[in-house]
Amino acid sequence: MNATGDVVVLRYGHRPGRDDRMTTHVGLTARALGADRAIFPDNAGQSTETVREVTGRFGGPFAVERREDGAAIVRNWAGVVVHLTMYGEPIQGVEGAVRESVRAGDEDLLVVVGGEKVPWALYEHADFNVAVTNQPHSEVAGLAVFLDRFFEGAELDREWVNADRRVMPEATGKTVIDADERNEPTADDGTTDGDPANDD
Amino acid sequence: MNATGDVVVLRYGHRPGRDDRMTTHVGLTARALGADRAIFPDNAGQSTETVREVTGRFGGPFAVERREDGAAIVRNWAGVVVHLTMYGEPIQGVEGAVRESVRAGDEDLLVVVGGEKVPWALYEHADFNVAVTNQPHSEVAGLAVFLDRFFEGAELDREWVNADRRVMPEATGKTVIDADERNEPTADDGTTDGDPANDD
Repeated sequence: MNATGDVVVLRYGHRPGRDDRMTTHVGLTARALGADRAIFPDNAGQSTETVREVTGRFGGPFAVERREDGAAIVRNWAGVVVHLTMYGEPIQGVEGAVRESVRAGDEDLLVVVGGEKVPWALYEHADFNVAVTNQPHSEVAGLAVFLDRFFEGAELDREWVNADRRVMPEATGKTVIDADERNEPTADDGTTDGDPANDD
Repeated sequence: MNATGDVVVLRYGHRPGRDDRMTTHVGLTARALGADRAIFPDNAGQSTETVREVTGRFGGPFAVERREDGAAIVRNWAGVVVHLTMYGEPIQGVEGAVRESVRAGDEDLLVVVGGEKVPWALYEHADFNVAVTNQPHSEVAGLAVFLDRFFEGAELDREWVNADRRVMPEATGKTVIDADERNEPTADDGTTDGDPANDD
């Protein structure tokens, strides 16, 4: 979803097995909260598969690709680079500047989400090192708050295309409908509550 | 942090080993983004320890406790219960009502974050079933967006007490200072970027 260029989330670093769920959650959060694409490290095959599968079922457009050259992607990015880090500048102070910077040049935005320790060069190559609080918490939480603020909530009204199924929002209920029919409740499709990556 | 009653995050369900990092991230996100307490399932000992350790280093007040009666906590909650679920009502439509409901009665707010499949009774006992998008993504992302919106960003300016160390926000840098001195940079304290739970 974009009024300007693409918003791309780069997961920097991944340890197979150990990081599968976190990387999957980074990708699904990127998709759900308005990013156009996610780039995962080359060794994150399982997370890539899970995110693609969710996109196949619940719609897009959203792309996920694997690349082994995270550092080069950051270095050669033509648009704006935001690095999310607890050492950065508070988001409430810089979110306006990030938005301006992206909109002014109709730029693509790269949002870098660290996993393992990231190299010092990343701090230098980033146009903005942004902190969602200067407290240690979660890269998934940081990404979520960043995207919601960057898009100013507009991402929540995004329309999805090519979905097989849709969840009907309800005060009390769990209704999933076939995306074509739009009125035929189907049985619970096995999606777990709030954690679709439980089974990855 | 509270203008009204306490905000308490209940992690519903936990599989030791498998869910350690997700539960830890739920707890750290709750702490960083303004909740007063987290309640973990009784079998989440390791996550409890990690969250307490982070609170010891980076300050509070924030409490985490273990309870085995998640269902009873929800059933007997005296204040307002919000259940975060992709099947619920869109947050952008109900966040105002949640806030009003909490403020009107000076109520404590329980935010329930599901892990494994949650029982149907939870949907019925909740005052609000709230969806941060009706898309599958991450309970950590959902919690983060919910808290940021519930507190209307005020949580980002929270002050921390009894901290051993503080991160100094910087455009480019990684500076951690001793909390007492406030001007003596110390060596990198080993906190990993954006994922303090890497070593749990």
